[in-house]
Amino acid sequence: MTNLYPNHSFEILKKAPDSRARLGKIHTPHGVIETPNYIFCGTKGAIRCATPREVKEAGAQIILSNTYHMMLQPGADLVAEMGGLHKFIGWDGPMLTDSGGFQIFAMGEGTVADEIKGRRNEAKPKMLEKITEEGAIFRSYTDGTKQMLSPERAMDVQHKLGADLIMPLDECPPYHLDREYSAKSMEMSHRWELRSLEKFKELNNGTQGLYGIVQGGVYEDLRLQSAEFVSSHPFFGTAIGGSLGVTIDQIYDEVVSWCMHNVPEERPVHLLGIGMIRDIFAGVRYGIDTFDCVIPTRIARHGWALVKGEPRERINLRNAQFKNDPTPLDETQDCYYSQFSRGYLNHLIRANEALAMHILSLHNIATMTRLMREVREAIADNSLDALEMVWRGEVTKIKMAA
Amino acid sequence: MTNLYPNHSFEILKKAPDSRARLGKIHTPHGVIETPNYIFCGTKGAIRCATPREVKEAGAQIILSNTYHMMLQPGADLVAEMGGLHKFIGWDGPMLTDSGGFQIFAMGEGTVADEIKGRRNEAKPKMLEKITEEGAIFRSYTDGTKQMLSPERAMDVQHKLGADLIMPLDECPPYHLDREYSAKSMEMSHRWELRSLEKFKELNNGTQGLYGIVQGGVYEDLRLQSAEFVSSHPFFGTAIGGSLGVTIDQIYDEVVSWCMHNVPEERPVHLLGIGMIRDIFAGVRYGIDTFDCVIPTRIARHGWALVKGEPRERINLRNAQFKNDPTPLDETQDCYYSQFSRGYLNHLIRANEALAMHILSLHNIATMTRLMREVREAIADNSLDALEMVWRGEVTKIKMAA
Repeated sequence: MTNLYPNHSFEILKKAPDSRARLGKIHTPHGVIETPNYIFCGTKGAIRCATPREVKEAGAQIILSNTYHMMLQPGADLVAEMGGLHKFIGWDGPMLTDSGGFQIFAMGEGTVADEIKGRRNEAKPKMLEKITEEGAIFRSYTDGTKQMLSPERAMDVQHKLGADLIMPLDECPPYHLDREYSAKSMEMSHRWELRSLEKFKELNNGTQGLYGIVQGGVYEDLRLQSAEFVSSHPFFGTAIGGSLGVTIDQIYDEVVSWCMHNVPEERPVHLLGIGMIRDIFAGVRYGIDTFDCVIPTRIARHGWALVKGEPRERINLRNAQFKNDPTPLDETQDCYYSQFSRGYLNHLIRANEALAMHILSLHNIATMTRLMREVREAIADNSLDALEMVWRGEVTKIKMAA
Repeated sequence: MTNLYPNHSFEILKKAPDSRARLGKIHTPHGVIETPNYIFCGTKGAIRCATPREVKEAGAQIILSNTYHMMLQPGADLVAEMGGLHKFIGWDGPMLTDSGGFQIFAMGEGTVADEIKGRRNEAKPKMLEKITEEGAIFRSYTDGTKQMLSPERAMDVQHKLGADLIMPLDECPPYHLDREYSAKSMEMSHRWELRSLEKFKELNNGTQGLYGIVQGGVYEDLRLQSAEFVSSHPFFGTAIGGSLGVTIDQIYDEVVSWCMHNVPEERPVHLLGIGMIRDIFAGVRYGIDTFDCVIPTRIARHGWALVKGEPRERINLRNAQFKNDPTPLDETQDCYYSQFSRGYLNHLIRANEALAMHILSLHNIATMTRLMREVREAIADNSLDALEMVWRGEVTKIKMAA
């Protein structure tokens, strides 16, 4: 059988003795991603108020862009004409694009994803018109035109964008879905994934690695079945998608755990759209290799800083308590942006200065890349539990190796 | 007589043979400003969406903050408690603060200054209640409290902020003012400047250099008289303020020219609030050493890039013509931000991404610092006319020395 991914590989460097945690490297045409790692969201081809150089200096190895947004503005053809997404936005490292499905379905269902995806200022009317076997019919939020996103179009658009890692279109149903609808949705997603794979083979030029997405909602038998389905087809990596549950226990000890039973060890595993600090520790132990979430940059826009050792993970710089606080955001962090004082950030937020968003976005990215680096070191050292205690603020003064 | 400014000096390195243009250095406790130079506006203690490190890398040697904004939010006492403005905002180079008067009077008069100073989202009611011999009574836009800005308070606040170069309170009347009111206003400004000087002497700790401000509107005899007044008192530098006129000929060939007759050569001269590219060439020839203006960062927020050799000085990246333009903002400019393509900026602006503001602010700062550097080199080489032709796009392909 032909290798669909001649320029991609996943290397496992070490497995933890007491969990499924592992150290690895994903090789892509634009470089290596050390795993476990975090993928930062450059939704519309831009990380909020931060340039690629600044994001890279903050330690990021890979970013993603949303196919949905890029296909509507500026359009996949234009990006291709401009030399592809890497060149267009000025990021020369590894990139991922999603399929575009999440935004369409989340918009159609009117779920909290509007808030999660930071679309508070965009048109509010439901844009999803219909889901058929062929694909999803929706209206463009930029010009109102009727559009079809089919599995084939999602592949075509992502081919034009040219990211290193890409996703097939799947239906992304809302959380409160019964078993029957979940099963039907999963089955359609599987058919869509096969169509994606066929289209991928047709377009494949060796520059992209296609993931399969495990669906099945919060139902054990469906998750097992879906993971087995995805594993039986030649996807480069495995993504865990769909409704994962609500509590952290449900997400990891149930849904993720079920999936991992039937996921091939030799493929990298991506958990779609989740990534608080506590998620990293829980997910890594179940063998998750990469995470993505808008959280680090989204909360930055609302004045929050992620802080190592803070029991609630983050602090709100808008609070009056920080008004005259000369303490740096995190002086233990080797990052220029982390050295600004909490008092100055409080001032910038109150004065409505966009510089707050810039500083906090980069500080939060630096915090997450530091977390991932320390997680990798801890897997190497078998000290993940101790590291988690420190990040959760349960150990006050353990000095971690830099 | 005691030297009021033991840690400040102005050194003239060269005078042009055919104009009043000169090369110099202003020495301050936080470093040297090579002149002619440009002072970038960090209105509320922040350059729009850019950190001090990024602003410095873009070539800026000095920035300013607005006393008016800082005294209301976060307040001068808080800034002092946090170690002064340099430490608070993280800028260790030379800084200037204005007196706060311009904002109060511009707000009170409801002039275009609202637009110029980028206050479009702030409370619109006129905040100035009364101007008396004592000072200006106004309401805070942050909490509505009644405030008095007197010459003494302007000195006190600026002392607490701790900038290297500071300004006395002057009345800043609107443009359409007859000679009689202009004369009265000028005389009150002179009395306020003397009170400022007295207060300055009381507070002086050797860290600040106080400018005197030449007033007199568009009237030759008043400008001559005011310049003579300012020159006869021990100010460190001379600022040209008030209504300067409308056309570029009126501003330079009349108002600035009149002032310069009576301005002592050995003091640095600052032109308040003006700084398009064409202003630099006109002002420098009349002996202006420093300029400040919100223009480079304000137009960045509206999608404009300043470009060397562009006859209109700037291009609007929002225009459809740039949609698929792979040309960098300015590839001849040694600045990371100037290498982003015009097509990408067009996309960012259309997608309403704050990153556009960040990139364009720093590109525009880099363009102005490059302009000032090339102006200094041209004064050294006696080639200012040729340089101006290149910047105005009248010479298409003269390669300037880097």
